[in-house]
Amino acid sequence: MKIAIDAMGGDNAPVAVVMGSIQARDEYNLNIILSGREIEIKKILEKNTSNFNNIEIINAEEVISNDDKPVLAIRRKKDSSLVKALNAVKNKEADAIVSAGSTGALLSGGTLLIGRIQGIERPAIGAVIPTMKGGFTLLIDSGANVDSKPEFLYDFAIMGDIYLKKVMNIKNPKIALANIGTEKAKGDKLTVETYEMLENSKLDINFIGNIEARDILQGKTDIIVCDGFVGNMLLKTMEGTVLELMKGLKTALMSTTRSKIGGILIKPALSDFKSKFDYSEHGGAPLLGVKAPVIKAHGSSDAKAIKNAIRQAKICCESNVSGLIEESIMRR
Amino acid sequence: MKIAIDAMGGDNAPVAVVMGSIQARDEYNLNIILSGREIEIKKILEKNTSNFNNIEIINAEEVISNDDKPVLAIRRKKDSSLVKALNAVKNKEADAIVSAGSTGALLSGGTLLIGRIQGIERPAIGAVIPTMKGGFTLLIDSGANVDSKPEFLYDFAIMGDIYLKKVMNIKNPKIALANIGTEKAKGDKLTVETYEMLENSKLDINFIGNIEARDILQGKTDIIVCDGFVGNMLLKTMEGTVLELMKGLKTALMSTTRSKIGGILIKPALSDFKSKFDYSEHGGAPLLGVKAPVIKAHGSSDAKAIKNAIRQAKICCESNVSGLIEESIMRR
Repeated sequence: MKIAIDAMGGDNAPVAVVMGSIQARDEYNLNIILSGREIEIKKILEKNTSNFNNIEIINAEEVISNDDKPVLAIRRKKDSSLVKALNAVKNKEADAIVSAGSTGALLSGGTLLIGRIQGIERPAIGAVIPTMKGGFTLLIDSGANVDSKPEFLYDFAIMGDIYLKKVMNIKNPKIALANIGTEKAKGDKLTVETYEMLENSKLDINFIGNIEARDILQGKTDIIVCDGFVGNMLLKTMEGTVLELMKGLKTALMSTTRSKIGGILIKPALSDFKSKFDYSEHGGAPLLGVKAPVIKAHGSSDAKAIKNAIRQAKICCESNVSGLIEESIMRR
Repeated sequence: MKIAIDAMGGDNAPVAVVMGSIQARDEYNLNIILSGREIEIKKILEKNTSNFNNIEIINAEEVISNDDKPVLAIRRKKDSSLVKALNAVKNKEADAIVSAGSTGALLSGGTLLIGRIQGIERPAIGAVIPTMKGGFTLLIDSGANVDSKPEFLYDFAIMGDIYLKKVMNIKNPKIALANIGTEKAKGDKLTVETYEMLENSKLDINFIGNIEARDILQGKTDIIVCDGFVGNMLLKTMEGTVLELMKGLKTALMSTTRSKIGGILIKPALSDFKSKFDYSEHGGAPLLGVKAPVIKAHGSSDAKAIKNAIRQAKICCESNVSGLIEESIMRR
């Protein structure tokens, strides 16, 4: 199995990406294709391993950044690490792709170059939200699609279900619809109609009804289904709130001598607590609904997070997630 | 000026509500109408004041709870404290109403009984979000309307603008649109079209563009405009995240002897920090777009929060917020 890696994507690229790729090759016995500036990549390889087996490099001189317009960048930056990695998958030289770069570009590129699974109108991104219980919830769609129709949300649920069963090993995952109340009749037109579809699904899914936004972190459900506009709002609101609270807490702890001493004493407990929010533990976010596995690793990924994302891509291939999605969509 | 109070609404009703009403009467020189169970209210009054001037009681035997269906409850529970207080406003016996009870019922009742301002299709609720800077942001709509049209969101912006200028004394309030990106073309159809309307408004408003969800708590804007489905999601996500983080932090602090001692030392700094999130400081949430001031006090309001909400209702009356909204809407 060959996994294509966008070696230039992410805050810590290319060093962390190349190092994570070496680790993944060694631990999971994989073939790796590193797409990016060959000279830079080679230097990092030479520094970190004496074994160059099962690692190929595709030279790509350009890099797509978060400031690039996604669709435009995919069309114009033909010599970018991302486009070349995507083309490797398109041309069957690789089985899957991992990138820690621009989410928008990976989404556009995945859809334009690798292509949608037959029957799927809108591929979606499933973000992994750590919960207070220690597990996680998959939020799908977390930002790929706006102005969704009920049919799209229904497909998001099916895709999330297969992903959790096959890749994350969760039996009979609970699926909930993000809503402003728990009653069936609550919400906007989109949510009410999606509820109806999920409730009456012929497929073997475990739909548990609506979930309110204030309960998301409690881990009451395995999958949260919503439109990408709403999902992105949820995700960013959570991120922003955690960030601001932690900043505020830090300032509070520095405010008096007493609180400073207290701050030193609680440091180990606090860092245990913070590790609960460690996204990298649960790997990257899958782009579901395209013909081959596409994994978006967190922008701030270190080598370990990259390694985990590659592992995810591998399991997606082995368990034939894309094929199973196509099959389910035909029966829906 | 007479303010009608739903004496039975809220977690701490009727005691906190009646006590807050007495304080408001004394501090702001107001006439208060308390709607609720007369015997209970009289007992609390007798215990807390020797002066019964400027306090009337409307006896109402029923109470509308959060479990009641809003529209149904307004139609059927004619003898409820909320309906009787609303009717007092409708019949011009009172100038405004304050309730800490069911938001949905107050919204339905405000719209059905007091009535919409001419030209306003959808009244909206403006929730007050404390920001890390110490101020607050008005989130409108925070849950009254789903499936909004751009025209509704545009009106939310105008109403929020007048409210902040007149009641909260903010000069030239910044208005931002909640969106998944800052660029003009970002977002769903609703947001893109609303952006266009706000940008081209003839009215004297200070539209600053889009704001991303992760920046909400930073206090970059005075008003955040969005559909009620999205607004409710944002609000509940923030509440849920703060709640879960604080719970998690508490557990972490109790985990070892060392962290317990640290926890005792940081207690004063932590409680200063927590007070930043004190909703009651900024009063209740206004229902804007109805013919008379309607203020929703937080469900967990204590006497002070009720007093502040009554003060808000008073300023709304004095500054003729409803009249100014009608005037702006005619010129929009």
